[in-house]
Parts: sequence; C-alpha cells; structure tokens
Amino acid sequence: MHDLTSIGMKKGLLYETVLSTENPDKTPNAAPIGVICKDKNEIVLYLYEGTQTVENIKSNKIFTVNILKDPLIFVECTIGDLSSDKFKLHENGFYIENTDAFFNAEVKDIKEVQKEDKIGKSKLNIITAQVTEIITKNECVKPLNRAIFAIIESLVYLTRIDKVNEDTSKLYLNRINEMSRLVNRVGGLNDKEAMKKILKHVQEK
Amino acid sequence: MHDLTSIGMKKGLLYETVLSTENPDKTPNAAPIGVICKDKNEIVLYLYEGTQTVENIKSNKIFTVNILKDPLIFVECTIGDLSSDKFKLHENGFYIENTDAFFNAEVKDIKEVQKEDKIGKSKLNIITAQVTEIITKNECVKPLNRAIFAIIESLVYLTRIDKVNEDTSKLYLNRINEMSRLVNRVGGLNDKEAMKKILKHVQEK
Repeated sequence: MHDLTSIGMKKGLLYETVLSTENPDKTPNAAPIGVICKDKNEIVLYLYEGTQTVENIKSNKIFTVNILKDPLIFVECTIGDLSSDKFKLHENGFYIENTDAFFNAEVKDIKEVQKEDKIGKSKLNIITAQVTEIITKNECVKPLNRAIFAIIESLVYLTRIDKVNEDTSKLYLNRINEMSRLVNRVGGLNDKEAMKKILKHVQEK
Repeated sequence: MHDLTSIGMKKGLLYETVLSTENPDKTPNAAPIGVICKDKNEIVLYLYEGTQTVENIKSNKIFTVNILKDPLIFVECTIGDLSSDKFKLHENGFYIENTDAFFNAEVKDIKEVQKEDKIGKSKLNIITAQVTEIITKNECVKPLNRAIFAIIESLVYLTRIDKVNEDTSKLYLNRINEMSRLVNRVGGLNDKEAMKKILKHVQEK
C-alpha cells in the first residue's frame, strides 16, 4: 500500500521536501516545500498564494513530493529554476533525478485562509492530498525533519548562555525560543518533550 | 574492516554524536561531542579542558562514539547525567542502549592548544583516535551532520529577506552568515558549494 511510514514519515511531523509539478507549457517545476504527514497516506501543505507551485497544483490537482538531502537541489530550486535535465518523467509526473524516494499525490481539498504575520497579510492555501504511489530509489530513506537540528542548536546555546555577556545571552535565549517554536511546528512528541526540558533548564538558570 | 563509511561517515565532515566514557569509579559517562571523520578509520575531537569526558579519555585512552538521533538522549546528557540504566557494556566500553550504531576508539595523539574566542581563553585538546571496532544496531544508520539544516535555514531567510524591514533583514543576514560558518566547519564540498551560491545570491540582492 501507499504507506508513508515506508519512507520514514511519521504522523504529525513536518518534513522538508522538494515538490515537483508540471507547468502549463508542460515543462517541470520544482520548489522546496514543507510537507506535513497527516496520516499514513495523506499529507497537508500550507502554501502562500502567488507561486508557480500553487498555480500548478491548483490546475493539475496532482504533484510529486521528492524526498532528498542534496543541498544543491534545495538551493537551485529556491534561488532559481532547477534545470529540466535534473528531472525524470514517471507516468504522468516529473520527479527529481537522484532523489532518495518520491511519491505522487492527488489533491483532495484546498482551503483558502487569510494569514497575517511579520511579513504582512497574505492568502494561504491549505492543501490536503492523498498519496497515490510511492517509489523508493535508495534503500535507506530518511526524510528531512528539522527538529533534532533545532534541539542540538538550542543545546549549544544552553551550554554557553551563562559564559557570555548579558546582550549575547539575550540573543542566545531568543534563538532557543525560536528553535522551540520550530520544534513545536515540525517535531514529534519526543522532540517537544526534549525542548520542554531545555526551556525548563534555561528558566532555572 | 573498521570503516566509518559503513555507518555513513564521510572524510572531512563533523558529526553530532554522543561520546560514552568510563569514570574513575567505573560508572558510565556520556556527553554530546562533535566528531570529525578524518579518515575511514580515524577521527579527531576538539575538546575543551575541564570536562569529565576529557578527563576520562585522557586517563583511559579509549572511548565509545554513539551514532544516534534520540533528542532526549542529547538533552539528558547535556543538562545532567544520563542515568546508568541507559548504558550497556560491550567488552571494555559502555555504549548507549537504542543507539543506531556505535564504535570504539583508541587515542593515538593528544595536542593541547590555547584557544581564545568570545567566551575567553581556554585550553583545547585536539584528540586523534583510531577506530577499533564498529557495531551497527540499525540497518539504516545516518550520522547527524548539521550542514543540510543550516542550508535549509539559510534558504528560509533568503526567501524572506527582501520582504521584511531593514532591522529584520539585518538579523536574517547575520543568521545566514552564522549558518555559512557552520557549514564551512561541519559540511562537505557540496554543502560548501551550496552555501556559496546562497551568499552570492544574497550579495546580488
């Protein structure tokens, strides 16, 4: 079956992936997107309006999620367009060559909400999609989740926070709080429990 | 053979691990330590003076490197002592239960240097060690390297940097530079190339 746990995805966690979609002119498009594993064969995306990826998903109702760790792919599809020779065609969707795994998904529902943050008001699309096929290229697939990184970074600051001057320790504390918000957004129960212990320890200092 | 590539370690990269050592009273000790893969069976540690780990390594000349991703283990051995029931004995060394893999290492050389940074002057021990045995507990071992996370975080700031006010964009730029230093310290060639592209793109903005 199309079970996301087969590629290491756990329910409730957000993973850093690269989405590939088809443009109106039939060329491939790729963008780095956070994918929430909603259930073993369902995912959710939060996409702001106005990107080619959102347009393509809305018009095609299908897209491909690439599970990979290649830093150059992430950079290239963020600061420009990933050159078409980096894509391969699988049935009716493009995936990225050398990806560890990829899966195709079909849109089940799109909710539009207004969101306001630091950057201002913007339209957010909450897209629920069903996994239709999973292809594993590399036996040991580990999707990218940022929680453990945020925890390790917080621990680095924690061990230094009482060795630095007040201004620097304030910066460290801000970073730890930022990392805590990140863990609560992308992490699992263990990650959140670990982060709680870090915050408790900081407060006791 | 004792080949670190068998547990996914690449020459030149720094990995976040948990070192386990034996205290003078024969109890186990654990601490989060960055381990540089110097060669397929050689590692280097940079350890500041004054920790139990350094004392134990200096007196025992052997230690164990645990390759794991459990956030609670990292937190517990940083903010306190990891409870002894989390350790298991393997021949003459302790390893951490539920670790994905571990390896034993034997000290070949210790260089002491004076280091000065933000935090002040301190004695740094540069410890070169030989891998004597590698035990894999989990088929798919992936040692923790922070480079890809630093790159993804930089990309997040990059996409926002011209949408925020000047003060915030300065903060973002500082973070990108900090992440760039991290990548140069812990990453591989691909990571460094990816980071170069990010910095180039930021400068062109």
